[in-house]
Amino acid sequence: MPVPDVLVDVVERIGPVDGHARAAAAERQSRLTKPAGALGRLEDVSIWAAGVQGRCPPEPFRRVRVVLVAADHGVAAAGVSAYPSDVTAQMVANFVAGGAAVNVFARSTGASVRIVDAGVRVDVPGADARWKVCEGSASILDSDALTAQQLRDALVGGVAIVDEEVDAGADLVVPGDMGIGSTTVCAAVVAALLGVPASATTGRGTGVDDVALQHKTGVVESALRRVPSDATPEQVLATVGGADLAVMVGVLLGAAGRRTPVLLDGVVSCTAALLAARIAPDAAHWWLAGHRSTEPAQRLALEALGLRPLVDLGLRLGEGTGALVALPAVQMSIAALGEMATFDEAGVSDRGD
Amino acid sequence: MPVPDVLVDVVERIGPVDGHARAAAAERQSRLTKPAGALGRLEDVSIWAAGVQGRCPPEPFRRVRVVLVAADHGVAAAGVSAYPSDVTAQMVANFVAGGAAVNVFARSTGASVRIVDAGVRVDVPGADARWKVCEGSASILDSDALTAQQLRDALVGGVAIVDEEVDAGADLVVPGDMGIGSTTVCAAVVAALLGVPASATTGRGTGVDDVALQHKTGVVESALRRVPSDATPEQVLATVGGADLAVMVGVLLGAAGRRTPVLLDGVVSCTAALLAARIAPDAAHWWLAGHRSTEPAQRLALEALGLRPLVDLGLRLGEGTGALVALPAVQMSIAALGEMATFDEAGVSDRGD
Repeated sequence: MPVPDVLVDVVERIGPVDGHARAAAAERQSRLTKPAGALGRLEDVSIWAAGVQGRCPPEPFRRVRVVLVAADHGVAAAGVSAYPSDVTAQMVANFVAGGAAVNVFARSTGASVRIVDAGVRVDVPGADARWKVCEGSASILDSDALTAQQLRDALVGGVAIVDEEVDAGADLVVPGDMGIGSTTVCAAVVAALLGVPASATTGRGTGVDDVALQHKTGVVESALRRVPSDATPEQVLATVGGADLAVMVGVLLGAAGRRTPVLLDGVVSCTAALLAARIAPDAAHWWLAGHRSTEPAQRLALEALGLRPLVDLGLRLGEGTGALVALPAVQMSIAALGEMATFDEAGVSDRGD
Repeated sequence: MPVPDVLVDVVERIGPVDGHARAAAAERQSRLTKPAGALGRLEDVSIWAAGVQGRCPPEPFRRVRVVLVAADHGVAAAGVSAYPSDVTAQMVANFVAGGAAVNVFARSTGASVRIVDAGVRVDVPGADARWKVCEGSASILDSDALTAQQLRDALVGGVAIVDEEVDAGADLVVPGDMGIGSTTVCAAVVAALLGVPASATTGRGTGVDDVALQHKTGVVESALRRVPSDATPEQVLATVGGADLAVMVGVLLGAAGRRTPVLLDGVVSCTAALLAARIAPDAAHWWLAGHRSTEPAQRLALEALGLRPLVDLGLRLGEGTGALVALPAVQMSIAALGEMATFDEAGVSDRGD
């Protein structure tokens, strides 16, 4: 497994989750006043939470931070989106002003949002641009998205961002994204990593029609021709990825290195997760899949990661919104494990067997 | 459509939801800063909320009340459950003490729980038994579950309960249930209403094994033989239903009559909903399906009602828990419609078309 040099220390820190806490959680689930298994997947989620928190019962997450990574993609100029590139910066301003869906969902769930400009074409007041590596990545149609230096800076930036967050008390990270053109580069990255054709990974993104989808698929196909068949994850990221994906790979690996769990969102965070897991497979134990988006690349990435999303409501917005819709179920699974009475405590008869 | 005499006034009060508010909500969705349709089913939910609240934008529900209706079923003695009948009363005591899953989920979501004893074999201190119609219904294997008087009293009780709740400010009702044997009577009711065999509606309930499932299916089959092919919903309810279902039918129709929406839970509330919609088809516009349970009768009832559940996490606990897991998504859909900036407000470019 080739590990980019700037990530060697981070990857070395990634360890397993707490197996004892997991076992204790599974045992406690069996004593709660409900038929065994009657809380379905929420039981598994509570066991996951015990493992990543290293205690049983786990506690509801107290400081959930959306790390919203925005960047432009040169390929947007190739007509792959229903929206112009300008919308990236406009939406970043909307995030700063608190008017986007992610802001509303964060308020609803008690989370908060950190807005990171990893490579937006123009600077937006209020966004954190300390780790900005470009003003839009190069178009993957005819050149590499990122230079080697940009890639390294972005990966290091992601690790630094998550270090700051964990130092400030974050106990759950939600990777969010914004960038016109991002579903195109995700389709290319997932196709390259899984060895499947562009047609299997390319979706409608913000909602392109049939003709534009065909064009978009052709763009992804062309970009893939420049990816060597034996490319490392690092090479795939630099060749057909982007600044947002690179920062997010840093965030995901950095979080796992800090024993901090992540609730994955849509196609961008799941593409970053697929890249990160190729670099450090153990990192995936620290992640939970929030929702199923409508993008085919997200489905394929989740399948390859062995992760099953909690909710499936046809969302395709990114920003971290899908993960935030799933967050209350995660918190409820934890509350159930911690707060429900056991058969003994409540004087309820367990089944005979 | 035959309407039981005690429900005539209630059914007459059931009117349509507010079409103007729905249209305004759909129009407002199209101006929010996101691609059209990008919030998937949450957009439909927000439009539903506008319709039942009669305003756009709708407001988050402020007083969500779980009306948890408990009752015993004589058929439990026939060995159809993994648990003894005593567990119904024990669990009601657990609800009163606040130790069950529904209590935990209600606390997590800002809801509260009203515990109604519609027909538990023994009285449980702290449960509201003012509308108790029996100490366990008769076994549907060899007699009618409820007498005509018990049925009437239970229907009237359900209407009275929801009247009290709405008078006290409830703006969303979640029907919860508890009763060993309830999935057996639901399988019988749904099979009778839809004209499908017992094998299509009978599930594992609290978790019976293959042998017990076969036995349970046989019990449902036998019970169905006593239902006339031209039975009214009222007759089906009295013949193979139970006190919990009857009270819940009253709750569902009473809520619609008071223009108060309902978030449906698992197989018991969806079976009651199927009965209620046969009595007053317009009532269904006031309901939203919370979750998909693992019981086949619930799936069939929802399909017949044309309702699609929001979450599907393998829950099979009842109590209102599945609806409460879906509640945050409902609230978030409403928050998005009310709080997100529009393209104009945020200065974000909409797509050209």
